[in-house]
Amino acid sequence: MPLDKLQSTLNYQFNERSLLETALTHRSAGNPNNERLEFLGDAMLGAVIANELFHQFPAGDEGQLTRLRSSLVKKDTLASLARELDLGSFLKLGEGELKTGGWRRASILENTLEAIIGAVYLDSDYNQCQAFIQNTFADLLDAVSLEDIQKDPKTRLQEFLQARKKAIPIYEVLSSTGKSHQKIFTVSCRFDDLPAAIQGQGASRRKAEQAAAQQAFVLLQSKIK
Amino acid sequence: MPLDKLQSTLNYQFNERSLLETALTHRSAGNPNNERLEFLGDAMLGAVIANELFHQFPAGDEGQLTRLRSSLVKKDTLASLARELDLGSFLKLGEGELKTGGWRRASILENTLEAIIGAVYLDSDYNQCQAFIQNTFADLLDAVSLEDIQKDPKTRLQEFLQARKKAIPIYEVLSSTGKSHQKIFTVSCRFDDLPAAIQGQGASRRKAEQAAAQQAFVLLQSKIK
Repeated sequence: MPLDKLQSTLNYQFNERSLLETALTHRSAGNPNNERLEFLGDAMLGAVIANELFHQFPAGDEGQLTRLRSSLVKKDTLASLARELDLGSFLKLGEGELKTGGWRRASILENTLEAIIGAVYLDSDYNQCQAFIQNTFADLLDAVSLEDIQKDPKTRLQEFLQARKKAIPIYEVLSSTGKSHQKIFTVSCRFDDLPAAIQGQGASRRKAEQAAAQQAFVLLQSKIK
Repeated sequence: MPLDKLQSTLNYQFNERSLLETALTHRSAGNPNNERLEFLGDAMLGAVIANELFHQFPAGDEGQLTRLRSSLVKKDTLASLARELDLGSFLKLGEGELKTGGWRRASILENTLEAIIGAVYLDSDYNQCQAFIQNTFADLLDAVSLEDIQKDPKTRLQEFLQARKKAIPIYEVLSSTGKSHQKIFTVSCRFDDLPAAIQGQGASRRKAEQAAAQQAFVLLQSKIK
């Protein structure tokens, strides 16, 4: 049976196999499908990952923990994990989705993984669902670090652009005003793809550059979403 | 001890009382405070409520369950619950927040309730935390219904405007084209505050009005956010 192979990859044997079948059924293939299970699994995943990070980072503040969790449960991360588990091969899709390659779509893969988590929870209990998530997300949890989210804006912007093979940003001091001990620097930051230079201000040249980089980074991310 | 009274209201006795104390400490009062517990409690609350709604509404689809959950865990709902539990009286706040009446602020009350949920989870386990939430949210869960979120767009728009003491919308048929059995109606919807009339189309006058109301409602909500 093909589902045996998947259960072995998932390292979880379902008592009620129909739950796994439902978790693998996209809404395009009719009812019952995995949408309700996805709702449940998404919530369970959020709780279990929150708990893991809470204990893994005893010095992490709320904002850091929130950002770490977002990075772990975001669409692309879940879709990659779903690809590693080869979920696409077991998906039941309707005609239309089949024709357009739905088994490769990140959103469908993400939702299927969440639905499987919901199915595991219904099939067992919270503790076993937690163990399933700990096991499935082990590598990601091992790799995550506060440093990822603590880099300063200039570094993050530069790494972001380099990862996309773009030229690094150019900063330029436009002006510095005020007396020597309370100067305000205004700096511009520009790079390809940015419609216009972005300005940042700060009490030092470095702070002004960081402020500009931060704004540019936020802008870039909002354009990508 | 004042905390005994609170534990009796909460219907939960802490093994580690310091967890409850931390949950009641706002960041303005120093460290340790309740921010990390709030992160954990928010996630646990989301999971438990998702599970409750999943079972309470076997016919609810993912979108409906999501909206029901949002209505239960939104700031105002949690703050009201925190007021019923009189959490404000047990809060530890810094000078500044005390002076400005922080114990009445919805966001602080909401966060404190979430922190208490996180503290209960750490003090016991998922099952006891679930029981605590089921007990604390019992009235809200009893009162919630799919009807709240299933009203048709015209009704929702009208109620939305009436709640804000605004005049009700005016619908007008602009045109109907096509043969008798496949007509398309175009209807306009206008009301104060709407920069221009919004149009909706449908196979009947009623459907066209619902389509226009739906668009107007979405537009209104996006303007409010």
